Amino acid sequence: MTATELAALVGGEVVGDSEVAVGGVADLASAGPTDLSFVSDESWVVAAKQSAAGVLVVPRELELRCTQIVVDQPRLRFAELAARLVVPSGPSGVSEQVVFGEQVVLGTDVAIGAWVSLGDRVRLGDRVVVHPGVVIGDDCEVGDDSVLHARVSVRAGTRIGQRVVVHDGTVLGADGFGYEAGPAGLVKVPQLGRVEIEDDVEIGANVCIDRATFGVTVVGRGSKIDNLVQIAHNVTIGQHSVVVAQVGLSGSVSIGDQVVIGGQVGFADHVKVGDGARIAARAGVIRDVAAGAVVSGAPAVSHARAVRIHAVSARLPELRERVRALERRLRALEAADPKGI
Amino acid sequence: MTATELAALVGGEVVGDSEVAVGGVADLASAGPTDLSFVSDESWVVAAKQSAAGVLVVPRELELRCTQIVVDQPRLRFAELAARLVVPSGPSGVSEQVVFGEQVVLGTDVAIGAWVSLGDRVRLGDRVVVHPGVVIGDDCEVGDDSVLHARVSVRAGTRIGQRVVVHDGTVLGADGFGYEAGPAGLVKVPQLGRVEIEDDVEIGANVCIDRATFGVTVVGRGSKIDNLVQIAHNVTIGQHSVVVAQVGLSGSVSIGDQVVIGGQVGFADHVKVGDGARIAARAGVIRDVAAGAVVSGAPAVSHARAVRIHAVSARLPELRERVRALERRLRALEAADPKGI
Amino acid sequence: MTATELAALVGGEVVGDSEVAVGGVADLASAGPTDLSFVSDESWVVAAKQSAAGVLVVPRELELRCTQIVVDQPRLRFAELAARLVVPSGPSGVSEQVVFGEQVVLGTDVAIGAWVSLGDRVRLGDRVVVHPGVVIGDDCEVGDDSVLHARVSVRAGTRIGQRVVVHDGTVLGADGFGYEAGPAGLVKVPQLGRVEIEDDVEIGANVCIDRATFGVTVVGRGSKIDNLVQIAHNVTIGQHSVVVAQVGLSGSVSIGDQVVIGGQVGFADHVKVGDGARIAARAGVIRDVAAGAVVSGAPAVSHARAVRIHAVSARLPELRERVRALERRLRALEAADPKGI
Repeated sequence: MTATELAALVGGEVVGDSEVAVGGVADLASAGPTDLSFVSDESWVVAAKQSAAGVLVVPRELELRCTQIVVDQPRLRFAELAARLVVPSGPSGVSEQVVFGEQVVLGTDVAIGAWVSLGDRVRLGDRVVVHPGVVIGDDCEVGDDSVLHARVSVRAGTRIGQRVVVHDGTVLGADGFGYEAGPAGLVKVPQLGRVEIEDDVEIGANVCIDRATFGVTVVGRGSKIDNLVQIAHNVTIGQHSVVVAQVGLSGSVSIGDQVVIGGQVGFADHVKVGDGARIAARAGVIRDVAAGAVVSGAPAVSHARAVRIHAVSARLPELRERVRALERRLRALEAADPKGI
Repeated sequence: MTATELAALVGGEVVGDSEVAVGGVADLASAGPTDLSFVSDESWVVAAKQSAAGVLVVPRELELRCTQIVVDQPRLRFAELAARLVVPSGPSGVSEQVVFGEQVVLGTDVAIGAWVSLGDRVRLGDRVVVHPGVVIGDDCEVGDDSVLHARVSVRAGTRIGQRVVVHDGTVLGADGFGYEAGPAGLVKVPQLGRVEIEDDVEIGANVCIDRATFGVTVVGRGSKIDNLVQIAHNVTIGQHSVVVAQVGLSGSVSIGDQVVIGGQVGFADHVKVGDGARIAARAGVIRDVAAGAVVSGAPAVSHARAVRIHAVSARLPELRERVRALERRLRALEAADPKGI
Repeated sequence: MTATELAALVGGEVVGDSEVAVGGVADLASAGPTDLSFVSDESWVVAAKQSAAGVLVVPRELELRCTQIVVDQPRLRFAELAARLVVPSGPSGVSEQVVFGEQVVLGTDVAIGAWVSLGDRVRLGDRVVVHPGVVIGDDCEVGDDSVLHARVSVRAGTRIGQRVVVHDGTVLGADGFGYEAGPAGLVKVPQLGRVEIEDDVEIGANVCIDRATFGVTVVGRGSKIDNLVQIAHNVTIGQHSVVVAQVGLSGSVSIGDQVVIGGQVGFADHVKVGDGARIAARAGVIRDVAAGAVVSGAPAVSHARAVRIHAVSARLPELRERVRALERRLRALEAADPKGI
């Protein structure tokens, strides 16, 4: 694509040779004359002058030999353009080393790698890419343009939307963790629901999203889940929310839209988190969180309150010393003025 | 099965048409005339009246058109009956896409999916189900009626009992994490032991259970392990214990019978936990826990003590304010009565 | 190998029959006459006398019938010898059930199990062992004598050094977790870098190590990573460092050489940890850690300081009681001596 075509996609202004063509993206240090790169802010200008990139996305016009595309948010615009330019590595065509169940339906231009197993009545949309070693159970659907990386498990009945990306080793739809105490031990509660992943979701590697006991466990449109996250049965995550690595969402937790959850956070079951809330890394959330709230700590409280609590707890030895000093001084006063006792 | 047959299995009393036949289970909302469902308590009665279920397991007789099975613990009884009625999805027969080692022994009615690899001298009991992509190393045994879901790794020498269920991506018997410091760096301590999973255990997805350095890492009969749990070398878990998601059990930790461990708990190595203890989510356990104890916090203390500590720590800013007020007042007294100083 | 040959490898002195031959290693209890075992310290002497081992590595000469190799550090020396004697279980030769990309280069004596997929231009060094179900993407390199256990994912462009061991289910080189907020939701930042694993690294099961956004995510020579660890994009780990299970290293975290990180620790992004630092289990590290420092707690502070803080926080109810007592006594004094108010 030419600089002019790229600029048109992001509403930018071209400075320099508008006909220069680029075929890939790279960082400033490694970019060559056919690569697009970007300048995030002023601190990158020196590196930009040394870069061999063919075209740069920049926040203002710079003194450079290469062509520039001037935009308001260069990181965002570069990311948008990269999505067009980066050709992902992966299988092309359908491998002969695939086991198909009955009544499988494949869209156009589907690619499936080796050692893949598809159950009965699986439906894959157009341009779906299934990497090697993926196992898809009966009655699953995968929407157009979605990518399942190597060795993903998609258990029976799971529905995956369009443009979804699931990274290696992730398990969608394993049984939720539910038992009833019986006289001879724990009796498994049947996990009869399913998992639904809406459009434009990305899920990291080795994540676990359990099927619902009844009904459905949902990850909403545009939400992003990092590696090694646990999402228990009947959890609902809204739209455009972000869940960082190693978070644990217990059964029936409900997360709103545009919520941000830091790494290693844990939630008690049935907790509800309102839209736009932000939960600091490593928080332990045992009560509902209001829309727009910012919470931290374990148990989590408002971030402002947590900062105040932490200011004291970090200086507890000094606080105890002050109490000891008070005790000494009070004893002295009492000794001097015994009628007060 | 008919309502009468089902009722007989759980000692319930049939109200209504005792000959109605059911073939599946579902929740009240989605159940149809050939499904069994249940009413947990009074709050479910309205939904029960709107349900199209053929047979309901109920705690007392209700005014319903459908057949009822009246029992004491409807959730438990429903779970027991569901185990009979739910036909799990999975492979039937032995796929042609399986690689067998030497001297493999298969019981009757074994099912093995595609892309499975079985090592030498592997023994699978009757009715064992091995889903696609499972890898079983040399000298492993899997007992009757056990199920290994897709892409489970069973490393050499592992023994799995009867009626065990292991979910996708779980790794049994990888090397424990042991090194000795040598002059040129860390030297690996050979991990020569193995893993034993006793009867009726269920293990979630992407769990890691390491083999013992010497001897055996054990998960005892009837215990249930949730997703993403780490069980290090030489850990012993007793019978009918429950370990919720993302818990980390360090080397040689010993867990008794009927222990319940909440999510994201961490244990220091060699800690012993007595029978029937309960450990709250996110606790950090660095000392032994007595049988029957209830502990929480990090480091974990008795739950009652943790609640008292938390009551103060949540109000530390106010405590500091009280100390400041005391200091002010004491200064005033001292100024008024200087002989006390 | 004979006792003499073994002793020569570790600079030990043989006591007893120097020509006795051993072919394996075991613990004292299960060792037989052709096994090597060891005595760690005095407390093991009774067990040593009952052992049927053929040769024992011991810290001083003991009264035993079997042959002894006397050394300074018996655990370390035994571990070194075990590395020579233990023959790991795994594939031999290259399975016919392997899919090869174009221009794949295999060294001598490579072993590849069934259901493996190798991308284009993959290079495997001499004596590399690839267990069943491994997926290796385009342009990856694996150095001599490295072992990839079952179902490991190695994404395109990853480089793995010599003598590296990666356990089952681990994912190397999945996309880092990076998005920019756009008007229609989060836009993926392309993850164009790669992962490099240097020589002599061992990585546990179900670990996730993400590729860099640009540049490279590195695990340095001789470092050891336990199970279920999260290593985000652009993290750098130095040489001979140890990362225990379930740790989360956020984006661009930099860990020095010979650092020890306990289980379940979490790091904020961009944190730097100096050489030789030790970080206690479950710490939350949000600021840089100096070389040689020992830190614990969340947020992490020096361990000595954390111990002092904890001594107070564990007795907060008593501290509050002391404040209450002070308030009572002060009120009494004030009442007796009202001019101070």
